[in-house]
Amino acid sequence: MSVGLRRVFPHATLHACPMADGGEGTLAALLSRGGTTRQVTVRGATGVLREAATGLFTDQAQIVTAVVETAEIVGITDPVGMAEPIEMRSSIGLGEAVKTLLDEGATRFLIALGGSSTNDAGAGLLAALGVRFYDAERQLLEPHPAALARLSSVDVTELDPRLAQVELIAMSDVDNPLCGSLGATAIFGPQKGVRPEQVEQLDAVLQACADLLESALGRSAQHSPGAGAAGGLGFALQLLGAQFQHGADVVAQHVGLPDLLRGADWMITGEGRSDAQSLHGKAPYVASRFAREANVPSTLLSGAIDARALDALTQHFAGCFSLTAGPMTLQECVAQAPDLLANAAQQIGLLWRTAQQR
Amino acid sequence: MSVGLRRVFPHATLHACPMADGGEGTLAALLSRGGTTRQVTVRGATGVLREAATGLFTDQAQIVTAVVETAEIVGITDPVGMAEPIEMRSSIGLGEAVKTLLDEGATRFLIALGGSSTNDAGAGLLAALGVRFYDAERQLLEPHPAALARLSSVDVTELDPRLAQVELIAMSDVDNPLCGSLGATAIFGPQKGVRPEQVEQLDAVLQACADLLESALGRSAQHSPGAGAAGGLGFALQLLGAQFQHGADVVAQHVGLPDLLRGADWMITGEGRSDAQSLHGKAPYVASRFAREANVPSTLLSGAIDARALDALTQHFAGCFSLTAGPMTLQECVAQAPDLLANAAQQIGLLWRTAQQR
Repeated sequence: MSVGLRRVFPHATLHACPMADGGEGTLAALLSRGGTTRQVTVRGATGVLREAATGLFTDQAQIVTAVVETAEIVGITDPVGMAEPIEMRSSIGLGEAVKTLLDEGATRFLIALGGSSTNDAGAGLLAALGVRFYDAERQLLEPHPAALARLSSVDVTELDPRLAQVELIAMSDVDNPLCGSLGATAIFGPQKGVRPEQVEQLDAVLQACADLLESALGRSAQHSPGAGAAGGLGFALQLLGAQFQHGADVVAQHVGLPDLLRGADWMITGEGRSDAQSLHGKAPYVASRFAREANVPSTLLSGAIDARALDALTQHFAGCFSLTAGPMTLQECVAQAPDLLANAAQQIGLLWRTAQQR
Repeated sequence: MSVGLRRVFPHATLHACPMADGGEGTLAALLSRGGTTRQVTVRGATGVLREAATGLFTDQAQIVTAVVETAEIVGITDPVGMAEPIEMRSSIGLGEAVKTLLDEGATRFLIALGGSSTNDAGAGLLAALGVRFYDAERQLLEPHPAALARLSSVDVTELDPRLAQVELIAMSDVDNPLCGSLGATAIFGPQKGVRPEQVEQLDAVLQACADLLESALGRSAQHSPGAGAAGGLGFALQLLGAQFQHGADVVAQHVGLPDLLRGADWMITGEGRSDAQSLHGKAPYVASRFAREANVPSTLLSGAIDARALDALTQHFAGCFSLTAGPMTLQECVAQAPDLLANAAQQIGLLWRTAQQR
């Protein structure tokens, strides 16, 4: 975009500002103003070790913040983690990542919850951080739903004490509770491989697990909005005191979008494909909200614009454009994206400049 | 375009103005301000009778103008006319159309020369209007190159006398002479099916025919720019006194584009695909030239924009946009063109309005 706009406005002040919404690109966006990528070795959803990218940055107040993307560790696009059925998958790797980053000195965590393959009420996360799950014979259970079906008691006395001192921020746009007809299993289970006849039993496992955990910790979280995020990781993180924030808000604030918008003439934003979902907390929509608050008009420049969402999108954007310059395949569009984006930004820049001069 | 712009500018004055450049759409554009379509029955390039659309309109001075599109009668896209080799094709149908329209009272002719399948020096046109072609035995020859190879003399005494009283305007962007290395046969013959080894002989037939015609009429035209247009129809029309004009200029003037542009804020124009050829007299380019003369910015909104021509196009247009809203096939784009065009016009309208308000 900057390349194209520069052709039209050679002397303008251009701020290229990365955005993300807790999904893909969140780690990169959060590290764009400083910080380092930290590769951690953790268990994937089925226990197979994998490398996962996390991030660490230190702010002006010397607070060390860690960034963890759930999808990097137990992602629904990971074929290894998806090779076993959902009742065998666990979020333990996420807890291992948190533990490693606690060891690195992090006292603030930004945890992106999108794109998980697990549905374990966050038992895996908690297990990695010291919670023990036992059956009736006091045998230690693996923290996945198949084993937790025999859950009889939990022991939280070994829970990592550092967690009481840290700030946990869960990035999620999901408002669902943990269990029931609007819960994690019923709503998000099917896309992770939960079969219809499995929903009731899995939901009951999560319910029993949650009841015991809440009782042991003296907190309740299963009915809170967002408890059903990421197969119940939302629940577990709320039990640990996490605050829920919209990923795009977290990123926008972190990258300094409000400051950049102050006094700006125009904001251009975009994504791969803009459709009705875009207005539910996706990065361009949130960017446009910040722009509107700063009284700056925003224009959408995406790979594709769904015509069915155009009326809704034009309520928020002064012009919604695709970077395609004619009929082409998705593959061609992706391959030529940098040039297409520069050219399209140039063209809307030309139109903008001309209209201003009239 | 009007549909989309109206969504943004409910109270603006919008002029939807058809444009064409002597090619497809010229007849419709020229009849858009009044006049009627006149179906004529004429011979196609190989003598098979066909229906062809022509037009008639009467201007304020009560002059009856006829519009004839060469491509409608001896078009290169007509499979019947293309079924026989080029030496058997004749432009006689064009002359028949002119004769019919003379009978209707036309005293002014706008003849679009694009897209012809013939290469007969316009002998067919002239034959239909009274010129006789003879061989050495004074046998009447058909007016196609295969027969004209035996041409010995021409008789112009029966040439329709009404032609001396009418205004003939040939619409063409071609500057080529009739014969030689830059002539009709050498340059435009191959795309009509002239084989390389055929060029010299065909060119000689046209040369001999032209020499006899010029001598008989006491005029010369074969070296004039445009004589090589439409397989030599340009030559024959010039012999008859035709003036050459660029099709897009004729159309722009006829539809009143200069008047519409006076005091306008913005002009949007477009075509199926804009590429380097667009700047050689095509409708959107000529429209932008008129706009520039009226100090009105113009924006290009086409089906596709060739990225290789973008630098050149942006010298003339304040923004070059495709109506595609994402990856799609040409077929999808064509099928959805009305909606896509409305949506795209709406989006550039939104951007324009916003930029003006800043």
